[in-house]
Amino acid sequence: MEHGFIAWAKQRAMRLPKIKLGIGDDCALIASDGSDWVVTTDSLCEGTHFILDQCGPQAVGRKLVGVNLSDLASMAAVPVAVILSLCLPRKSADLLGSEIYEGVCEACEKYNVAIGGGDTNVWDGPLVVHLTAIGTARPAGSWLRSGARPGDKIVLSGRLGGSLLGKHLDFEPRLKLAQALYPLGIVQAATDISDGLGIDLLNLTAASRCGAEVELDRIPISDAAMERSKSSGHTALEHAIGDGEDFELLMAVDPARIDQLPSEVDGVPLTVIGTFVSRTGLWSRSKGRIEQLQPRGYVHG
Amino acid sequence: MEHGFIAWAKQRAMRLPKIKLGIGDDCALIASDGSDWVVTTDSLCEGTHFILDQCGPQAVGRKLVGVNLSDLASMAAVPVAVILSLCLPRKSADLLGSEIYEGVCEACEKYNVAIGGGDTNVWDGPLVVHLTAIGTARPAGSWLRSGARPGDKIVLSGRLGGSLLGKHLDFEPRLKLAQALYPLGIVQAATDISDGLGIDLLNLTAASRCGAEVELDRIPISDAAMERSKSSGHTALEHAIGDGEDFELLMAVDPARIDQLPSEVDGVPLTVIGTFVSRTGLWSRSKGRIEQLQPRGYVHG
Repeated sequence: MEHGFIAWAKQRAMRLPKIKLGIGDDCALIASDGSDWVVTTDSLCEGTHFILDQCGPQAVGRKLVGVNLSDLASMAAVPVAVILSLCLPRKSADLLGSEIYEGVCEACEKYNVAIGGGDTNVWDGPLVVHLTAIGTARPAGSWLRSGARPGDKIVLSGRLGGSLLGKHLDFEPRLKLAQALYPLGIVQAATDISDGLGIDLLNLTAASRCGAEVELDRIPISDAAMERSKSSGHTALEHAIGDGEDFELLMAVDPARIDQLPSEVDGVPLTVIGTFVSRTGLWSRSKGRIEQLQPRGYVHG
Repeated sequence: MEHGFIAWAKQRAMRLPKIKLGIGDDCALIASDGSDWVVTTDSLCEGTHFILDQCGPQAVGRKLVGVNLSDLASMAAVPVAVILSLCLPRKSADLLGSEIYEGVCEACEKYNVAIGGGDTNVWDGPLVVHLTAIGTARPAGSWLRSGARPGDKIVLSGRLGGSLLGKHLDFEPRLKLAQALYPLGIVQAATDISDGLGIDLLNLTAASRCGAEVELDRIPISDAAMERSKSSGHTALEHAIGDGEDFELLMAVDPARIDQLPSEVDGVPLTVIGTFVSRTGLWSRSKGRIEQLQPRGYVHG
């Protein structure tokens, strides 16, 4: 439902001058008498975003911090604090609460983020965990989804697909990468890959009012996507395009300065996979043919 | 579980210099290069905080904004923006989502607060709604729970008890009251009444390392508490002390300037109900006798 809802919600919401950027990007940008604040929130629901019996509560806590910090990274924000809210099933509230919290603390320590406070609730439903992450914006401007221009190169961090085999729980929000790239001034737009390359690229092009042409042969495919393709009935490429929760960065890079793009940062590869174009929509280029690209990644024909 | 958990969580959390006030007050205070930011979060779970079939989704949205703004009011903060996260039951996600959002928008418009963004999820569990509210702190200092001193007067807004009969859904976060009282400089500490007068007063005294002596005859009792007492087996006074979700302000006021306290603000009465004392614990004074006061409000004997 999310797309129609977000479009409507954006119209419905009152706009106030302090909101520089509201509904529809990875984070909100809130003006202040000091640095702007960057705020994001994500909830994880048992059975949808994790299977508690399989991953354990600490991994839920770490993932919760990771998904929110990934949003901050995609705007090149510097994380400051997180605020936690737990809805805990009654029968195991104490133990579950402390183990999730332990995972949250571990992740916060790793990324030097403070825990500002929160709220705990005990109820009769399954586990739901929420986090709001707050950071400061770069004074010279945040990376937005809306900054891509025709001609910009489409750049990806890492390798994509098959996150269900483990990466969806155990990933690195790309804070260091953003920190390394931001000072170069070559990134014009960015988002993180949470819904899958196809959908997130479509969202980025929609926000930038342009299209994208992807060279399919250049998409870096993860070992997990190869593994998944053995039994899923889809190709590894389809997994790379369609699977969600990669938590890699998808960026638009100034073509005039593309030679300044490092090939990797701290072992994380950076790959040019195509070009933003003025014709709207997603397009694939493979063996000289241009076709429409299905955002879900299940390419037919 | 909340008390033991919060105490442990506070110890476990890493402290960073930007968190001026973390776990354990109504809101977190986060330092900035401009005004400090005041951040609070609250989740409402179906079946625990509301019965969806009885109140309808718009009331859930309004309550969600209200409980968070009540926390900001209790620190005399000025609200700026809210960030919403919804976990919607699959079978009615679209309609439910837009109706809750409508309630959130109504409340935000009423209190001149912007909606900065959010996150929507569809899952197989019951409805959970979650909000983070962000405001700016008063440059001259926020009202904290820890500021009460022996001798300060215990002051309450409004009338207490019986919120289940309606007020728990339909209440006024005391932003105007805080705005009117703050400039007088007479309030030393504050919290909002969400768990019930007894428990919230106990929390405030614990944070301030003092005790409180309440004159039972002075506690302003709501009509709803009177109504409830007809069938609940408890007295109206017990409801006033023990019921939660009044969302009134509980304050410590400087005794030397108590004559500056208005008797009401915009029709909301302000009542002195006792005195903070150096002896820890909660005490009641009634007809010349001093007894220990049970925070749950079920006074025996």
